[in-house]
Amino acid sequence: MNFIRYPQPSQWPQLLARPVMDLREIEARVAPILQQVRQQGDDALRAFTLQFDKVQLGDLRVPAAEMAEAETLVSPELKAAIGLAKANIETFHRAQLAGQPERITTQPGVVCWRKSVGIEKVGLYIPGGSAPLFSTVLMLGVPARLAGCREVVLCTPANRAGKVHPAILYAAAQVGITNVFKVGGAQAVAAMAYGTGSIARVDKIFGPGNQYVTAAKQLVNKEGIAIDMPAGPSEVAVYADDSSNPVFVAADLLSQAEHGPDSQVILVSTSEAAIQRAAEEVLRQLEALPRKEIARQALSHSKAFLVTGEDEALRL
Amino acid sequence: MNFIRYPQPSQWPQLLARPVMDLREIEARVAPILQQVRQQGDDALRAFTLQFDKVQLGDLRVPAAEMAEAETLVSPELKAAIGLAKANIETFHRAQLAGQPERITTQPGVVCWRKSVGIEKVGLYIPGGSAPLFSTVLMLGVPARLAGCREVVLCTPANRAGKVHPAILYAAAQVGITNVFKVGGAQAVAAMAYGTGSIARVDKIFGPGNQYVTAAKQLVNKEGIAIDMPAGPSEVAVYADDSSNPVFVAADLLSQAEHGPDSQVILVSTSEAAIQRAAEEVLRQLEALPRKEIARQALSHSKAFLVTGEDEALRL
Repeated sequence: MNFIRYPQPSQWPQLLARPVMDLREIEARVAPILQQVRQQGDDALRAFTLQFDKVQLGDLRVPAAEMAEAETLVSPELKAAIGLAKANIETFHRAQLAGQPERITTQPGVVCWRKSVGIEKVGLYIPGGSAPLFSTVLMLGVPARLAGCREVVLCTPANRAGKVHPAILYAAAQVGITNVFKVGGAQAVAAMAYGTGSIARVDKIFGPGNQYVTAAKQLVNKEGIAIDMPAGPSEVAVYADDSSNPVFVAADLLSQAEHGPDSQVILVSTSEAAIQRAAEEVLRQLEALPRKEIARQALSHSKAFLVTGEDEALRL
Repeated sequence: MNFIRYPQPSQWPQLLARPVMDLREIEARVAPILQQVRQQGDDALRAFTLQFDKVQLGDLRVPAAEMAEAETLVSPELKAAIGLAKANIETFHRAQLAGQPERITTQPGVVCWRKSVGIEKVGLYIPGGSAPLFSTVLMLGVPARLAGCREVVLCTPANRAGKVHPAILYAAAQVGITNVFKVGGAQAVAAMAYGTGSIARVDKIFGPGNQYVTAAKQLVNKEGIAIDMPAGPSEVAVYADDSSNPVFVAADLLSQAEHGPDSQVILVSTSEAAIQRAAEEVLRQLEALPRKEIARQALSHSKAFLVTGEDEALRL
């Protein structure tokens, strides 16, 4: 981490500037992929999967046998964790199910109301590259089911053996998603936006992804397909003082640093000693991280600010 | 309107295809405008206003004297209508103000809730060209005030005399908006996205606009400024049978046709006579519309479908 002692407020905007990706070059590479999937459907998906994921696929849909096999490959501990997470997510989102809408008479004879209606067809993009995000399967799939979405499509890339990570398939089965396809990247976004022989066209696409996925989502958004949001880069800002536990401070900083080399990680403190302890602990915990190379890159441009007091810390 | 008799379901997708604008060319013209406003601030706004709106501005802010004068220029009838609309909009949105958030214990010791918080700084774009949308001032300004937005900026283009339409200023004053600026087009979006000497940078930009405004909103959205949505083209589909009043059917069709030449206007009916009556009434009402040239262009590619029954009408 870069240590910055008592920065002037005039310097803050520059020091806190978010990393902004220049999407133009990426868009120029993604646009022809969208176009080709639109025109050639499943054939284009197979061609791009061979080109980018280095795997030759026949059927794009994950077969029932692979879904069943996945259940045998996930450890009992992970199954228990997925079950607990699913129950918590359900409890939270079930409370958001709206009851009868409130009817408002704005003037005699004019009655207005707002009513939430589940989106009929939704597509979930689940990254499978550097981290298989089965947590995202739960966080998107549970509310989709509770909202009553009629059709839920899930796209996620296969590995070089042509298989999807079993934890993703197990989580999908737990939330009742059966339409799982072995397609990743911009081509998966195109498939869900336009529809192909195998994959149904959806109304809204959700989920995180790398910069190609993000660019593809933004491009199809301009053509009228809804998206949740452009995801990333990740950000975290932690305020710590001498009462803070450096083990927790470091873990919080690393939790976002490991998301990607462009994560923005910031520590703010009124205590030089607290910064010192947190920085040492970050280095110690870093060694144990499976994704330490990614976190190390993010930390190389992360910043620890020493400020004069709590008020200044909060303003910063 | 184009009359289509008993279309086959296989033809529906093509017949109902939405007009899709190719934004690439527009974006290429908008991007340098954004860049110049970002770098040169108010000077760039004045230069673009001279170039596009043909008016030389000094102060970009609408002065208090012009706000006061606007009140004298709006007719008592329009003031009464604005007052009624404002009251109705307030009644509706006040009912949406959330009370205390529901706290949900997902498991012992873990309490989660959702809380709605007003966005601190919002920017409203109000078109002033072919139609001064003072209704939009009310529909955006009232909820912004109710939500507690700390700062509300309104941008709208001036006419060639350097004045803003008095109904826009009157409506703004009625909802308590005092930061009104004589800037329109892509340059107004840039000003609210980046901030200039006169105009505060906002967190989210709302409001309709032409294709340059829409492209500008989508471009700044990619840089992290939130937008409500890309607006337009307008759409309407009306179902009518022999019991329908053709005067109302025609008025509903024209209400969206007059939005723009690219509005998509569709009539569906099980009765050839009902279509005939509505089409005649459209032509009759069209003559009385101030925006009849725009509506006429939209109607030239609009469609009336004759179908075999109510079920088919609803499916279509």
